[in-house]
Amino acid sequence: MARNIQSLERAAAMLRLLAGGERRLGLSDIASALGLAKGTAHGILRTLQLEGFVEQDEASGRYQLGAELLRLGTTYLDVHELRARALVWTDDLARSSGESVHLGVLHQHGVLIVHHVFRPDDSRQVLEIGAMQPLHSTALGKVLSAYDPVAHSEAMEADRKPFTDRTVCESVAFEQVLDLTRARGYAADVEETWEGVASIAAPIHDRRRMPVGAVGITGAVERLGRDGELRPELIAAVRDCARAVSRDLGAARF
Amino acid sequence: MARNIQSLERAAAMLRLLAGGERRLGLSDIASALGLAKGTAHGILRTLQLEGFVEQDEASGRYQLGAELLRLGTTYLDVHELRARALVWTDDLARSSGESVHLGVLHQHGVLIVHHVFRPDDSRQVLEIGAMQPLHSTALGKVLSAYDPVAHSEAMEADRKPFTDRTVCESVAFEQVLDLTRARGYAADVEETWEGVASIAAPIHDRRRMPVGAVGITGAVERLGRDGELRPELIAAVRDCARAVSRDLGAARF
Repeated sequence: MARNIQSLERAAAMLRLLAGGERRLGLSDIASALGLAKGTAHGILRTLQLEGFVEQDEASGRYQLGAELLRLGTTYLDVHELRARALVWTDDLARSSGESVHLGVLHQHGVLIVHHVFRPDDSRQVLEIGAMQPLHSTALGKVLSAYDPVAHSEAMEADRKPFTDRTVCESVAFEQVLDLTRARGYAADVEETWEGVASIAAPIHDRRRMPVGAVGITGAVERLGRDGELRPELIAAVRDCARAVSRDLGAARF
Repeated sequence: MARNIQSLERAAAMLRLLAGGERRLGLSDIASALGLAKGTAHGILRTLQLEGFVEQDEASGRYQLGAELLRLGTTYLDVHELRARALVWTDDLARSSGESVHLGVLHQHGVLIVHHVFRPDDSRQVLEIGAMQPLHSTALGKVLSAYDPVAHSEAMEADRKPFTDRTVCESVAFEQVLDLTRARGYAADVEETWEGVASIAAPIHDRRRMPVGAVGITGAVERLGRDGELRPELIAAVRDCARAVSRDLGAARF
C-alpha cells in the first residue's frame, strides 16, 4: 500500500512540475528535478502517457501535460455546486456592472478561478477559468483570507510578494486589511496586483455559514473608482451578487 | 515498477469513473466498480485527495473530482500550440460568420474541444472547452475521421449511435460521407447530432502535412442553411480559417 501511494505521489509531482516553469521537459530533466532514477521516472511517465495525462512531442521527445487533464478538469467544473448556483447571478453582475466577473475558491495557497464572465463589450478577452490568483493582493484572495481560517493561515505563512508599490505585504498591515475586510463585508484591490486594475469582491457562504468562495468584479481603475474611492454602486452590486449566491446555496437570510 | 504502474492505472480508472455517470461516489461503489478491495481503493483515494485530484464531501463522505484537475487542465491549454495559433483566426471566424466557433482535436475515441468562441451576440451560452463530441456525427468528428488515420479506425470500430433520424451510422454509408469530406475539403453536420443544429468544419494541417485538428462553426440550421443547402459563404469562411491556422503552424501554402 505504501508503495502504491509513493508512485501516485511521484506521478502527481511530475504533473505539477510539467504545469510550472518550462512546461516541456525531457526525461532527464524530470528525473533529476524529482530525484528519481531515469528508469523509475520513465515507467511513471509511460503510464501517465498511456492514460492521456502527459503527451510526448514526437520531434523533441519532451513531455508535456496531456488532454485527459482538460477533459477531467472540465468535468470537475460540471459537478461544482457553487459554480452551478452562481452562473445566473454572475451573468447579471457582469451586465449590471459592465465589468468582468470572477468566482474563486481556495486551492493550494491561492485562489482558483472556477468561473469567469467576460466584460460585456466586444473586446478580446482571455478566459481565466482554472487560473490561480494570489491570496494576499487580490480582492478575491483577501475575502477568502478574511473569512476562511485555512486561507488565513496560508496567507499568513506565505511569502507575500509585492506585485506593485501598493501591495500590502507586511503581516501586521495585512492583518489590518483583513480586519477592515470583515468590518466592511467586502475586499478591494486597487492596483495591488496589476498596475491600472482594481477589483472588488465579497464572500459567499453556504447553509452551514461556511465561507465557500468569493465573487468579484475586475476592471480598469479609472472605471471602478471615482474621486479616489471605489464606486459605491459597484460595491453594492458585488455584495448583492454574493448574497444571492449564498441564498441559493441555502445560507440563512440574516 | 510493474507495481507502480498498476497503482497509477487504478488511480486513472478511478478518475475516469468519477468523471462519468454519477460523479459522486462512495468508497464501496468505487471499490466494487473497479474490482478492488476496499482498503486498496481507500489508499489510492486518500493519496488522490491529498494531491487535490479528488475531493470528499464532508456530509455524505462521497468522493468527486478535485480542483487540481482544473488547474492542470488549464495549464494543458496554455501550452497547446494549435490552440495558441488559432486564437485570433477563430475570433475572426466568429465575427465574420456570426456563429460560435469550436476547435477540436482527437482524444480517446472522440473530439475534445480545446477552444470555443461564443456566437457574437448577447445571448447566454455555455462554454464547451474540455467537452467531448462524437466522431461519426459532428462536422469536427467527420473531418478528423476523414483525414486522421487513427481517428478513422476509432470511428469505424466505434459503436456509432444514432442521435437523430439523420445520423449516418452504417459503415458503408459512413465511409461514403468520409470520401465526400475528403473530396470537398470540409464536413457538414445537418441535424445529425442535435435537432435544429448544423455545423461545418475543415481540417488543420501542420508543417509535416499531418491533420492535427479541425475547426468549425455551429449554429441553428435555419441560419447556416438556405434553400436546403449550407450557405457557401459560411463554408468558405470556415475553410479560410482552417487554411490560415495551418499556415500559422507552418503548413505549405499548396
